[in-house]
Amino acid sequence: MSTKMDFQLDRTLEILRATPATLRALLADLSDPWIRCDEGPDSWTPYDIVGHLIHGEKTDWIGRMRIILEHGELRTFTPFDRFAQFQESRGKTLAELLDTFEAMRKENLRTLEAMNLTPEQMNLTGTHPELGQVTLRQLLATWTVHDLGHIAQIARVMAKGYSHQVGPWGAYLSVLRDRS
Amino acid sequence: MSTKMDFQLDRTLEILRATPATLRALLADLSDPWIRCDEGPDSWTPYDIVGHLIHGEKTDWIGRMRIILEHGELRTFTPFDRFAQFQESRGKTLAELLDTFEAMRKENLRTLEAMNLTPEQMNLTGTHPELGQVTLRQLLATWTVHDLGHIAQIARVMAKGYSHQVGPWGAYLSVLRDRS
Repeated sequence: MSTKMDFQLDRTLEILRATPATLRALLADLSDPWIRCDEGPDSWTPYDIVGHLIHGEKTDWIGRMRIILEHGELRTFTPFDRFAQFQESRGKTLAELLDTFEAMRKENLRTLEAMNLTPEQMNLTGTHPELGQVTLRQLLATWTVHDLGHIAQIARVMAKGYSHQVGPWGAYLSVLRDRS
Repeated sequence: MSTKMDFQLDRTLEILRATPATLRALLADLSDPWIRCDEGPDSWTPYDIVGHLIHGEKTDWIGRMRIILEHGELRTFTPFDRFAQFQESRGKTLAELLDTFEAMRKENLRTLEAMNLTPEQMNLTGTHPELGQVTLRQLLATWTVHDLGHIAQIARVMAKGYSHQVGPWGAYLSVLRDRS
């Protein structure tokens, strides 16, 4: 059983603020083979994942928070397009995507902080098109876990790029066997 | 089948150089509950993992490269202590550990670059105490994958800290089910 943390908005913001710089430190100075490696057919590259995170900033998190605050459960969230990045990132360099993500995240966190959410508002509910009733707290926790999940994914995908280079050490490197 | 990358020393260095700043961006501004969360009994916290990476810088990678270059297969590597960090990190802040890791990694990469390794030297072999014959190339690729695996682990462990906060979204957040 892993550690169970209480939800706190301040702690949530710590992770959400850190993600743009984490992605930049991890990816900005890498050559193309790292950025373009994947885990097999229909899997995502680090480049794809940054585009996916941008699409979330544009259309998902803050938009859904607004729907909860303004319409509660009456207005179902717009479904999130998990493949939008394949169109939207086209022709852009990774450096451009990292800049865009950083700018949008900064703006979204300003918006979030300006909402001055109270602990009571965290219990407000909305309607997810597939999952049904969800709370504002769950939405914010999901934004956080979504960031961390994709950071883990990027590191895992790149690790697998060298899976055929580690020889017998592969036995100890369990990241090479995650999701495969 | 994931992308198979060729081994190139330059590409390897890109990852090894990026890790200190990645860990700093991911962890430096987080409050203690994130740094101290784990995946259950005998699992490691982000704090423990940074200590483990420091121990690798001190005793593993460069030391083993030197053994290969100087003694080939004749001298078996010293076994790596996977639990040394529980002693060595004691009483230190995460900020101190991040500084130590950055300094040691920088020094080790200077040492590595001063070795001016040739492609032929990458095929030199050494003896691992459990795995037997390994090459210098495999050692360098393993150093790289080891970094990425632990970055993925840190992100995964922290994601699980909020696993009880995401409600029905847990169904979509597969990072919460990795290694559990």
